[in-house]
Amino acid sequence: MRMKAVLLNCTLKQSPAPSNTQALMDHVIDHLESLDVECETIRVVDYNVKFGVSNDEGDGDEWPRILEKVLAANILIIGTSIWFGVRSSVCQMVIERLDGTYNNVNEVGQYPLYNTVGGVVVTGNEDGAHDAAANTLFNLAHLGCTIPPNADTYWLGDAGPGPSFIEADGWSSPYTRKTCQWMSHNVVHLARMLHDHPIPPEGNTVPMSMMKGMEMGPGREKRMLPAMMEEEGEGGPIHRLLRRATKARRSGH
Amino acid sequence: MRMKAVLLNCTLKQSPAPSNTQALMDHVIDHLESLDVECETIRVVDYNVKFGVSNDEGDGDEWPRILEKVLAANILIIGTSIWFGVRSSVCQMVIERLDGTYNNVNEVGQYPLYNTVGGVVVTGNEDGAHDAAANTLFNLAHLGCTIPPNADTYWLGDAGPGPSFIEADGWSSPYTRKTCQWMSHNVVHLARMLHDHPIPPEGNTVPMSMMKGMEMGPGREKRMLPAMMEEEGEGGPIHRLLRRATKARRSGH
Amino acid sequence: MRMKAVLLNCTLKQSPAPSNTQALMDHVIDHLESLDVECETIRVVDYNVKFGVSNDEGDGDEWPRILEKVLAANILIIGTSIWFGVRSSVCQMVIERLDGTYNNVNEVGQYPLYNTVGGVVVTGNEDGAHDAAANTLFNLAHLGCTIPPNADTYWLGDAGPGPSFIEADGWSSPYTRKTCQWMSHNVVHLARMLHDHPIPPEGNTVPMSMMKGMEMGPGREKRMLPAMMEEEGEGGPIHRLLRRATKARRSGH
Amino acid sequence: MRMKAVLLNCTLKQSPAPSNTQALMDHVIDHLESLDVECETIRVVDYNVKFGVSNDEGDGDEWPRILEKVLAANILIIGTSIWFGVRSSVCQMVIERLDGTYNNVNEVGQYPLYNTVGGVVVTGNEDGAHDAAANTLFNLAHLGCTIPPNADTYWLGDAGPGPSFIEADGWSSPYTRKTCQWMSHNVVHLARMLHDHPIPPEGNTVPMSMMKGMEMGPGREKRMLPAMMEEEGEGGPIHRLLRRATKARRSGH
Repeated sequence: MRMKAVLLNCTLKQSPAPSNTQALMDHVIDHLESLDVECETIRVVDYNVKFGVSNDEGDGDEWPRILEKVLAANILIIGTSIWFGVRSSVCQMVIERLDGTYNNVNEVGQYPLYNTVGGVVVTGNEDGAHDAAANTLFNLAHLGCTIPPNADTYWLGDAGPGPSFIEADGWSSPYTRKTCQWMSHNVVHLARMLHDHPIPPEGNTVPMSMMKGMEMGPGREKRMLPAMMEEEGEGGPIHRLLRRATKARRSGH
Repeated sequence: MRMKAVLLNCTLKQSPAPSNTQALMDHVIDHLESLDVECETIRVVDYNVKFGVSNDEGDGDEWPRILEKVLAANILIIGTSIWFGVRSSVCQMVIERLDGTYNNVNEVGQYPLYNTVGGVVVTGNEDGAHDAAANTLFNLAHLGCTIPPNADTYWLGDAGPGPSFIEADGWSSPYTRKTCQWMSHNVVHLARMLHDHPIPPEGNTVPMSMMKGMEMGPGREKRMLPAMMEEEGEGGPIHRLLRRATKARRSGH
Repeated sequence: MRMKAVLLNCTLKQSPAPSNTQALMDHVIDHLESLDVECETIRVVDYNVKFGVSNDEGDGDEWPRILEKVLAANILIIGTSIWFGVRSSVCQMVIERLDGTYNNVNEVGQYPLYNTVGGVVVTGNEDGAHDAAANTLFNLAHLGCTIPPNADTYWLGDAGPGPSFIEADGWSSPYTRKTCQWMSHNVVHLARMLHDHPIPPEGNTVPMSMMKGMEMGPGREKRMLPAMMEEEGEGGPIHRLLRRATKARRSGH
Repeated sequence: MRMKAVLLNCTLKQSPAPSNTQALMDHVIDHLESLDVECETIRVVDYNVKFGVSNDEGDGDEWPRILEKVLAANILIIGTSIWFGVRSSVCQMVIERLDGTYNNVNEVGQYPLYNTVGGVVVTGNEDGAHDAAANTLFNLAHLGCTIPPNADTYWLGDAGPGPSFIEADGWSSPYTRKTCQWMSHNVVHLARMLHDHPIPPEGNTVPMSMMKGMEMGPGREKRMLPAMMEEEGEGGPIHRLLRRATKARRSGH
């Protein structure tokens, strides 16, 4: 079975402007394709993605088209440039939009991104890769992704303003090459592992008993959906409704 | 086979002072033991651990005793309090000391913490859990650990100074209980998976060909050891020397 | 002379949706107005602000209208909500757009935001205020702002999802009230001080001698403009061109 | 009147091992001395500083000797190396110890570090300067320091392990030189300004009225001391007791 990777390029620059982050992502894609992974890159800023934290903000919002692909992937790679020492606003916007997935579950009651593997690609002309990578991978793990060892690759020049990845021939950096290779291989290793042996749905859905006697106001419980599903039982309406969201992913490959 | 977890409590306070972080870690231990995991807690500040980035700083340094246990574990949990919005100095010191493991490899040429699963426990009277958890899990992933989904649990009060976990009865928080359960189960799920199916040593050691024509000065290549081992071949002296470092771990269980 | 404050609300939600961040910012405004400061709030997401790092991205970009007000203020307050533990994408976008000001200087050759005082307001339903505030204030200081003591105010609930500032009656928090008052007063104290005694232009423009013999490729020197101006001398064309950018600010009050 | 600067070097390495951070700090000192500032460097790890958050942890703790100098300075510079993308454990330990100053006030009821100016020096072989500087300057501002524009200087090599500041001749970086000069001058500009015009004690002590009707448990109010002093009135016992703590500073210069 072929693994499928979606790579979200969170550069600030619309096509066809050259993207330094894409240049490094292309090397990741080379590795992934050599490992028989089907890759699709999405340059987020080319789409009309609205600010917000739901799955569909309406009014021409094109995030649902991106989300559909994300949910069907085994591997999710976020690429970002660095501005002022942290990840780009477009990257932050993507993470915010993924908040909407907390309202859904997969067919066993876990968040939809369970059994997806996360990785990150960062470029900047200096400083900020650890912060950008750490936050992004942590956010992905919160959303349900598994993070393999060495799941980041980045390139940076030395202190201060200077040329970016393409102009500086960042690919000549042995560290960037090494981490690019390691990240690419490890996301595939873990994706295959999780495909063959999904994370069991034990202990990662909330028992309703835990909630007993605790006041949970209306509208604040979105992350408690797994608990509601557990109470409802397998054949209930929430199950049926939400199951379709992740069905494509399982049946598609 | 029984999984083994080592939990490093990075509170600033020496025993027998009560530790809020330990109080939450104890709930993690309850979960882990119910899943048949053997747990050992180490309160780092009770040991004479020296500042530094090597495996043994000499002069009575007790880090080697801790490191030995870390390397023999399937699950590594870091517990930390928050001070000034970030993880404690003791936690940072522990991460710095783990830098020394970059100089070692396991029997297949990966960093010694490959196939170990990482998790984190954070307590504070307010704010800082995401930063402390994100950095710590990212550092562990860099060192070779795999990070499962929802691999963090934390408790915080609301803005400003206030009571800590024990005094505030933090365990009554449904969010803390949920994340405690999820984290505990997921580190075990992944530890079992990696025990049965270790991450293949493909693509996560550096081919020497990549280094060709690149100037790598003496003393700067510690993280390139896997590459040197690859060139040397299985029976070489580096292999023999370093294999012993992680042998205990594999044979021990 | 009346001080002038511009407050940028970086909520994700367009008007007329209620903004929790605005609710806390309104308390800051109460303090500022009691100190005779003229306040203008801008809800950034109500404008067509484009992603980018220049002062005008063209094609209907409304950032120049906002920037003009920012440059004319004595006090610049950034308000942001927290998403996934860090500042909002809109806040990051605002900081990215301020990058454009590095290409300008004030009448004495410093960055245009020299002698402006920075502050920050953060709300979230939990965790992330320190990270959001620290990055934002640091970025403002890099851009030229002075940061007074206790220049942040925030409100957060305890761990996990929950009600936000308005619903939770966050204003009942003594810590939030205290920091709100302190921040408001200190930005005014410093603004008055810097108005009466601007930071002397000694040592904060780059002498060309420093650059001698160092290769600085074309298009990478934007932050070196002060040096070029110094070489050019007071009456040169760069001086004349850029002086107009900050003239309004000085003459306006 | 001569300004006085205290520079805390937070390297992990004890004397006489060469410190890369000190090498860059020495350039800061060159600038400061040329501006007639009296400088004293303290290498923290050469002292027996204990983990904790009080002003004196007892049992041979040498922090009080350092703290006394910090409180008598007009300028406080923190120098730190980067490990795993963030500031060193020694730097974090120093910040934690400064927590103790929240329990004291100056002669007008502000935190003792009011009217002190903060700056930061960071070195690493790659990545992490923004995070280290942002957190450290933010913490200093919380403690009462004022942060001038461009109050940080740093040097970093490009991505991955590599030579450090001394070996790499980091001082040849125009960006590091520029920021070193700017930071040095700006901390002096602001220190002189605050010496001549201290921040007025208006609005930065807490009125007791604000606290009315709010439950503040015993032992949680340390940061509320200014409020208690306000209620007590100028001649009260808390005033007399605490005034001595900062007296040396004012009378000393």
